[in-house]
Order: sequence, then structure tokens, then C-alpha cells
Amino acid sequence: MKIEKLTKQAFAAFGDVVEIEGAEHFFINQHFAERFNNLANVDVTDEGGLVNISIAAATPRPKPIAIKLMERHPLGSQIFYPLQDEEWLVLVCDDPKDKSTYRLFQATGQQGINYKKNAWHHPLLVLNAGKFIVIDRRGPGNNLEEVPLTRHMAILS
Amino acid sequence: MKIEKLTKQAFAAFGDVVEIEGAEHFFINQHFAERFNNLANVDVTDEGGLVNISIAAATPRPKPIAIKLMERHPLGSQIFYPLQDEEWLVLVCDDPKDKSTYRLFQATGQQGINYKKNAWHHPLLVLNAGKFIVIDRRGPGNNLEEVPLTRHMAILS
Repeated sequence: MKIEKLTKQAFAAFGDVVEIEGAEHFFINQHFAERFNNLANVDVTDEGGLVNISIAAATPRPKPIAIKLMERHPLGSQIFYPLQDEEWLVLVCDDPKDKSTYRLFQATGQQGINYKKNAWHHPLLVLNAGKFIVIDRRGPGNNLEEVPLTRHMAILS
Repeated sequence: MKIEKLTKQAFAAFGDVVEIEGAEHFFINQHFAERFNNLANVDVTDEGGLVNISIAAATPRPKPIAIKLMERHPLGSQIFYPLQDEEWLVLVCDDPKDKSTYRLFQATGQQGINYKKNAWHHPLLVLNAGKFIVIDRRGPGNNLEEVPLTRHMAILS
């Protein structure tokens, strides 16, 4: 599967790329810090949702990685931002049953993503063990939809 | 000034310590990730506020560091989580004009903090240049109150 570079433009249909590059920025703290501002649209308040701050510790899957399910969150956006400067992978699609709609992105260790509500995505795909800050939704309602896939797609060998 | 170890208990009056230690946790992603959940109370919706995701790039201040102002945010909580595994400092107080109420904490590179609304704090204090994920408030209203201090307190030599 072709691996694309992660850019705001390429990822726009699925959500935000959370990164310094291209961001509005200004000095704060008496010029001892620079703030790169408003990097993502956090959208979690449907049906009484609140912001949930978490840390996810991910381990790599054995290769070749067979894609066995995709998931989406109908009630809230979901940010993953890496806590180590290491590349990682982001797999999304428009329709889990249509292989032609899948897109695989390689993110740098200084790029996070924010999945829009209802953006189909694979669970975390790390190349090495690593941690991520997760900013998503907690609250009432069913916010997880999973589609198991009988026809697997191996994406990494 | 005495430097305290940053713990949830010691910091409770000022906000949350955002860390894996002591957190509710469970496996997700077919056991390829562990989620340490609900690490902070994000409180930003007063007066139409929204969540603001930013990255702050901080540089160290020249030593000795003279404390010249404290600040607080009346309309929203504010998280700083480090993007490098390096220790940093957190200076807070109950009353900016009362030196006896100041407390200085040393955070690890795997500890963030979430200032409560109205918790007095100093701007970022890093020992080396570093980046932080910031999760705070954007929206209408004046969310910054600063107190300049004529009687400086040198805290690091």
C-alpha cells in the first residue's frame, strides 16, 4: 500500500494535522515561549460529552500487519499526539468495505492527528513502542463503532 | 526556595497532575495499547469558551530567575504536558503578594499539570529548551490576570 506524507491538505477529509508547521503563532511569557495556537477542532460536546485527557501506551503489531477492523467515533473528535519524536502510521478510509478508499499516512514524531467525528480509522499503528496524549470524549452514549473485516489488507511487511 | 516533588496530593489545591501513575487504565486496540484514562478536568466552557489545543516552545530564563509576575486564568483550566522527557519546574501560590504561600514543584518529563481556573502560577519554567502540549480555553472574555511583583523572589541560582 502506498504511504503518503501526512499534510494538512491531504488529511483534511479525515480531520486535523496537529503540528507547529503552518500554525498561527506568537510570543507569550515575556518572550520566553512561543505559542503555536489553535491546532485542532475539539468537538466532543454532543449528548453531554466532556473532554477526556488520556495517555495511550502503544506497542507495535507483528508484521505483516493484517488490517482486521476499522473504527469510528460518532459523538466526538479524537486527537493522538506522540510523546516521542518517532515516526508512526495513520490509516483511514471513507468506506471500510471499499479497499480503494483506504489511505495510509506516515506521520513524523512532531505530528499528531485529530480524527473528525465519524472518520473511519485504524487503531494506533506504531513502528516502535510509544506513548501518545489522547484528547477525546467521555460521557453518555455509544461513541464507538467497529467494523470487522473478513478480507484483510496487509499493509506492512 | 524549597523544591517539592510534584504529586497529585501536594498539587491538589492548584489543579491536576497529568500522569500515568495512579490513573485508571485498561487495554484498548485489541491489547496493542493501554489507555490511562481521564487524567485531568478540562474546564473551559464558561462564557462560551472552547477547547484550544496549542504547542508552546519554551526557552529557559537566565539564572538566577527573579520572579517578576504571577498570572491566573479566571475563565478556564490550562494543561501543560511536556513533549520531551526532561524535568521542569512549576511555581504556584495562593496569594502573589504573600511570599509564604509560594510553592515550587519539580515535575518529571512524564508529568504534566492542569491549572484550575484562578490558580496563580508563573509562566513556563524550563531548565532546557522544550515543547509542551497546551490544552486550555479560547473564546470571548478576559481570561488573563497578571500581577507584576515589585519585590522579586529569586528561586533558582
